[in-house]
Amino acid sequence: MERQDRQDRGVGALSTPAAPIETDALIIGAGPVGLFQAFQLGLLEISCHIVDALPRAGGQCVALYGDKPIYDIPGTPVTTGRGLADSLLQQIAPFKPRIHFDEQVATLARQDDGRLLLGTSRGNAFLCKTVFIAAGVGAFVPRRIAVEGIASLEGTRLFYHPDALERFARQSVIVHGGDDAALETALALLPLAKAVTLLHRRDVFQAEEATVAALRERIAAGALRLQVGQPVGFDPAHLQVATPDAQTVALPFDTLIGCLGISPRLGPIADWGLALERKQLPVDTEKFQTQERGVFAVGDINTYPGKKKLIVCGFHEATLAAWGAAAIVFPDKSIPLQYTTTSTRLHTLLGVAH
Amino acid sequence: MERQDRQDRGVGALSTPAAPIETDALIIGAGPVGLFQAFQLGLLEISCHIVDALPRAGGQCVALYGDKPIYDIPGTPVTTGRGLADSLLQQIAPFKPRIHFDEQVATLARQDDGRLLLGTSRGNAFLCKTVFIAAGVGAFVPRRIAVEGIASLEGTRLFYHPDALERFARQSVIVHGGDDAALETALALLPLAKAVTLLHRRDVFQAEEATVAALRERIAAGALRLQVGQPVGFDPAHLQVATPDAQTVALPFDTLIGCLGISPRLGPIADWGLALERKQLPVDTEKFQTQERGVFAVGDINTYPGKKKLIVCGFHEATLAAWGAAAIVFPDKSIPLQYTTTSTRLHTLLGVAH
Repeated sequence: MERQDRQDRGVGALSTPAAPIETDALIIGAGPVGLFQAFQLGLLEISCHIVDALPRAGGQCVALYGDKPIYDIPGTPVTTGRGLADSLLQQIAPFKPRIHFDEQVATLARQDDGRLLLGTSRGNAFLCKTVFIAAGVGAFVPRRIAVEGIASLEGTRLFYHPDALERFARQSVIVHGGDDAALETALALLPLAKAVTLLHRRDVFQAEEATVAALRERIAAGALRLQVGQPVGFDPAHLQVATPDAQTVALPFDTLIGCLGISPRLGPIADWGLALERKQLPVDTEKFQTQERGVFAVGDINTYPGKKKLIVCGFHEATLAAWGAAAIVFPDKSIPLQYTTTSTRLHTLLGVAH
Repeated sequence: MERQDRQDRGVGALSTPAAPIETDALIIGAGPVGLFQAFQLGLLEISCHIVDALPRAGGQCVALYGDKPIYDIPGTPVTTGRGLADSLLQQIAPFKPRIHFDEQVATLARQDDGRLLLGTSRGNAFLCKTVFIAAGVGAFVPRRIAVEGIASLEGTRLFYHPDALERFARQSVIVHGGDDAALETALALLPLAKAVTLLHRRDVFQAEEATVAALRERIAAGALRLQVGQPVGFDPAHLQVATPDAQTVALPFDTLIGCLGISPRLGPIADWGLALERKQLPVDTEKFQTQERGVFAVGDINTYPGKKKLIVCGFHEATLAAWGAAAIVFPDKSIPLQYTTTSTRLHTLLGVAH
């Protein structure tokens, strides 16, 4: 890892860099393993913040299969992605972890005093003794529309998976995509917008049957326009779309909404100078530390002999990584292993002392 | 590990050795990690039996803190030893594991065909491709009364932690011990037995306040005799007890019940020729295999750099050990990692296919 230089790229690019938040540990990723990392750090009295690119806890687990059953969490015969995230949030609640959502860690640089300075996409900075990369297969970010120059419209006339639709009232809106999110967005816009066009590469949708039926009914009624094709260009008033029969159609629009799914991207982690093996971070199996002292990698993002990308393995990795961090955060303290069943110190930390 | 010779000592000592039970895997220990081992083997379609020295599942977890809270099982904010064991039993139920309680594995020997032959204290034999030692800190066995020759009475006039007390009806019974189990046994015998004596080394008990109060009340009423002292010898009719004032008292008895607690003993595992480091089995961190191919060690009984004796770590170890076993049980099959959330094969195995 290079010293100092990276921070200029991320944090330094901001007009008014904030004073860094000082903490023992920063956890990158609020998926199940990142959340349990906060629990194990809490038991060892190591303070932490968590940063996640998504708007809520649970990571991939909630984003990809929030309502689908999971059967292989030990001691939990069945749960869901959302159920597991909720249980873990309840479990770590005694430690009051501060979770920063909708925020991506952009830069990581070693300071002269040995600490690590991290800058985020929102201009926050964290100064910490240890970092836990629990980023899974990377930050989940919306798939972008592949039209040259169109990124310049982002935030003004182009939005990906927007939450609130009221701002598009009385506008002419194109929704691009063919899954549940796209169809639901198009249908939800109908009572609000001046005109809604659903743009999809083919006349087949990957969505709930009832949603597709509702959409077909609205198309048949002339309330919503379906355009089959791919966007290929734009001018201030129109999106150019190439149709399957090799025509180009110019669709007028005020706002373009992309609902092309979200996909993981390793993103800036790849730029931190850490060794990578096929987009994964090699770690030891004693502390799950990368080759950088104090930078640990846990869960799906790490690799070591025998590695399986399973949540149960990430829980173990987070446990041993926390002990690895304890040696850095408390270099002069020898910490005995204590049990939550019998330790009054742990009971006090967990808020269950009587 | 020596070949063949050990089996004669254990299995061969029996008058009629049973035909061995053939199975892919034998798990030694039905604690949380042994139970989860069965789950991970089940997902990989590896058949297994479980043997445990205790009369019920849960191991140390249930024996030592069955009703005490546990806070560090990931995704389970709070449970108890018993609660965890019950959840794991429910989780592995789809695989219908065959658990042999009250039975200790005594011998382990490699066969000429590479398989492993194990003999138990009950004269059962298992012939299997892989063995998972999940024996925690050893088999939990009742602490014995330290009087020379008294073991000869075991099973006829001497019993440790007996379950059913009806057989002691109309007998003169001495209960030896000072904890909850001892006091509860003595009190429960009162309506049944001809006479009950509680023998404890001092006139102070380590038991619930209410139980101690009930005991004191019965002693004061003359219903139960308390004898302070230590047993030092016996004759057919009496137990000789040395009292704190250096006297010897001869207590008449039909039956002697020992309730001196249960303590873990590594026991025969130490005799199998496996390398030991401070009573633990060194393993690799890729498969958690001992130096013997096909003999895995998981949970508190193993050791490796960074090892922490935590249940969460044992769950991970059991997971990778199952994959290590798959390579032995199915040498010609390449098995892809599948997820319980999405794999129809795993749904069928778990009995949740629709």
